[in-house]
Amino acid sequence: MKPLKFEVLKETNDSGARLGKITLSCGTYNTPIFMPVGTKGDVKCLTNEEVHKVSNGLILANTYHLFLSPGMDLLNKVGGLKNYSKWDGAYLTDSGGFQVFSLSKTRKIEEEGVYFRHYKNGSKLFMSPEISIHMQNAIGSDIMMSFDECPPFNSSYEYMKASCERTIRWAKRGKEANLNPDHQALFGIVQGGPYEDLRQYCIDELSKLDFDGYSIGGLAVGEAQEDRIKTLNFLRDHMPKDKPRYLMGVGTPDDILYGIENGVDMFDCVEPTRIARHGVAMTSNGRVLIKNKEFEYDFGPLDPECDCEICKTYSRSYIRHLFREDEMLSLRMLSYHNLYFLKKLTDDAREAIKNDRFQEFKKEFLLKYYKRSE
Amino acid sequence: MKPLKFEVLKETNDSGARLGKITLSCGTYNTPIFMPVGTKGDVKCLTNEEVHKVSNGLILANTYHLFLSPGMDLLNKVGGLKNYSKWDGAYLTDSGGFQVFSLSKTRKIEEEGVYFRHYKNGSKLFMSPEISIHMQNAIGSDIMMSFDECPPFNSSYEYMKASCERTIRWAKRGKEANLNPDHQALFGIVQGGPYEDLRQYCIDELSKLDFDGYSIGGLAVGEAQEDRIKTLNFLRDHMPKDKPRYLMGVGTPDDILYGIENGVDMFDCVEPTRIARHGVAMTSNGRVLIKNKEFEYDFGPLDPECDCEICKTYSRSYIRHLFREDEMLSLRMLSYHNLYFLKKLTDDAREAIKNDRFQEFKKEFLLKYYKRSE
Repeated sequence: MKPLKFEVLKETNDSGARLGKITLSCGTYNTPIFMPVGTKGDVKCLTNEEVHKVSNGLILANTYHLFLSPGMDLLNKVGGLKNYSKWDGAYLTDSGGFQVFSLSKTRKIEEEGVYFRHYKNGSKLFMSPEISIHMQNAIGSDIMMSFDECPPFNSSYEYMKASCERTIRWAKRGKEANLNPDHQALFGIVQGGPYEDLRQYCIDELSKLDFDGYSIGGLAVGEAQEDRIKTLNFLRDHMPKDKPRYLMGVGTPDDILYGIENGVDMFDCVEPTRIARHGVAMTSNGRVLIKNKEFEYDFGPLDPECDCEICKTYSRSYIRHLFREDEMLSLRMLSYHNLYFLKKLTDDAREAIKNDRFQEFKKEFLLKYYKRSE
Repeated sequence: MKPLKFEVLKETNDSGARLGKITLSCGTYNTPIFMPVGTKGDVKCLTNEEVHKVSNGLILANTYHLFLSPGMDLLNKVGGLKNYSKWDGAYLTDSGGFQVFSLSKTRKIEEEGVYFRHYKNGSKLFMSPEISIHMQNAIGSDIMMSFDECPPFNSSYEYMKASCERTIRWAKRGKEANLNPDHQALFGIVQGGPYEDLRQYCIDELSKLDFDGYSIGGLAVGEAQEDRIKTLNFLRDHMPKDKPRYLMGVGTPDDILYGIENGVDMFDCVEPTRIARHGVAMTSNGRVLIKNKEFEYDFGPLDPECDCEICKTYSRSYIRHLFREDEMLSLRMLSYHNLYFLKKLTDDAREAIKNDRFQEFKKEFLLKYYKRSE
C-alpha cells in the first residue's frame, strides 16, 4: 500500500505549469499548493479553525523544533502531533537538516549524522537519517522528508559533489529506517546547488530508491533569483514527472509563480506569517507597510480586492492603530490575511492553468504586485 | 430620554448581593457582570467574535490610551470606537483619570485639570473634566465615567477631603460638558479612601447631580484586602440602591465575590488577560502556572470542569509546549479561557442569587479555588 498517490490532471503547452492531485489517507490536495508553516505544531498566532480557512488543509511542521520540544518521547506517548495539536488536516515535515546545518558554528557533520548543540540550553544533541525519520514517525506526519545536507549555494563543486553523495546515502538509510511506510510518505531531496550534472546525479540516484515525491533543496537560501530560476528551469525537464515536486522554503509570490511555471507542485514558507509580524500585508497591489502614516485615516480594507474575514471587517487605520500600540491582535489579523492571500494566489493559479491562461495570469500578477513587466 | 435604565430584579436577605438589569440603547445586560478590558479598543489577543463568547457583551475601553492613539480627531471622523473596532456589543469607558494620576512623576494637578506628559514621546498633554467627557463622546461609549482624582488609599484625611471636593466639582463640570446625554450614560465616582465620612460626602454630593450610576473608586489600588472589604461593607448600605454600582479595577475571583456580596453590580479588570500572558490559567481548583514541569505529560484540559472551546480541545501539555516556545497562540488560549472563567463565575453567581444560595456558592468557590474557609 502506498501512503501517497499523485495524479497529474493537466499539463500546459507554454510552460511547465501543471495541475495535480495528491491523495493521502487523510484527504485530497490539489496542486500547485502553498503550505503554511506551523513550526512547532501551530501556525503562529492562528487556531486550527483559522488555518483551515487560510490554507488548503496541508501545513508544514519542523522536525528540528519538535525534536527539541516537546520531543520524540512525548509525541510517541500522545500518538503523534495531530493528537497533540488537534490539527485535523495533513502535516508535511521537513527533516530537520536545514535547521541543523544552519547552526554552522556549533555542529559537526560525520557520516553517521550531525552533532549539534541545543540553541537555547547548549546541550549536546545528535541527528542522523534514522533519528530524523524516527522523529517524523513520532510526529506522524503524512509526508516526511529525507535527512539531507543543505550546503550553501556557492559551495565548491568538490564539496557539493561529496555532499550530494552523502545526501543520497542518507536518503537510502532514512528510507530503510521508516517505521511506518504504509501511512507516511517519504520524499527524497534533490541537492546540487547550481551544478546541473550534480542535480541530475541526485535525481537519478534518488529515483532508483523510488520515493513518493521529490523535493528541491538548496534553493531560497540566499542565492540570486536569476540563479534560482535557472536551476528550476533545468529541474523542470529532468525531475520525475509522475511524482509531486516540492520546492522547499519558497516563498514570495513571484518565486511561487516562477516555481509553478517550472513544474513545481508544492511550496512552503514562513514569509507570509513572518512579514505579518513586522506589519507587512500582501495585497493585490503589492506590499503595504501598515504602520506608515499614510494609512492613519485610511478606513478601507488592507486589500480592496480581498474577501478574507479581516478585509471584510477591519480597516487599515484600525489595524495600523493596533500594530503601533503593540496589540497582538494586529499580528493575528495580518498573518490571517497574508496566508489567505497566498492561498488565493495558488487557487487562482490552478484556475488559470485549468483555463489555459497561466502565463497571462502570471504576467498580470507580477505587473500589479511588483509593477514588473518581464 | 435616559441613556441607561436600571432595574433591581432581586435582593437577598443574607447579604447585599442583588440581581439587576441594565438596559442601554444597544442591548440589555444582566448584573452582576464582569467586563473584560479592551484598553485600546480590542481585548488583548482576541477577536470581537471571541470576546462575545467570553463576555456578556459589555467591555471596557481606556480613555487615556485612546486619547493618545488613535486620538479624538480620528474617532470623531470615523464616528466612534464601535465603527472603528467593529465591536457590536457595548463599551464602558473610564475617564482617563486613573492612568493620568498614575504618572505621578510627570503630572501636575490644577483646578482646571491635569498636565502630564506622553508616556512614549514625552510631549505635553492636558486632560480636564471637559476634555475627558468630550473624548468619551468621541469614543461613543455607552457608559462614561466622570473625570476624578484617584489618590493613594493611604493619603492623609486632609488631602483626601480636598481631593473629594475637587472630584465632585469635576463631576459636575463633566456632566455639564456631556455632548450626548441622551445616548451616553454617565457615572459619578465615589472616592474617599478609607474615610467613611468622606465616602458618604461623595455619595451625597454626587447623588444631587443624579448620575446614571455610581462607581467605587480608590479601591484595588494596593490597599489590604480587609481594608477593601471594610469600605465595600460601608458602601453597601450607603450608595443609592436604584442605580448600578461599579467597582472599578476589580478583579480577582474573591474580590468579585466580596463585591457582589456587598451589592456591587459591575466589575472590570485586566487580571484575567494579564495573568494569561504570564502563563497563568484560572481553574475551578485554583490557579495553574502552565509552564510548570508537572504539566509536561498532562494531556487533560486546563480546567476539567470548564466547557470553553480551549478546554474542550487542547491539553495542558500542548498549551505548556506552546507557552514555553513563545507561541502567541498560547496567550490567546489562556486569555480566552480566563475570561470565560470569570464570565462563568458571574453567570453562576447570578444563578446562585436567583436560587437564594449566593453565600453558599461563595463559600464553596473560595474553598475550592483558594482552599480558604472563612
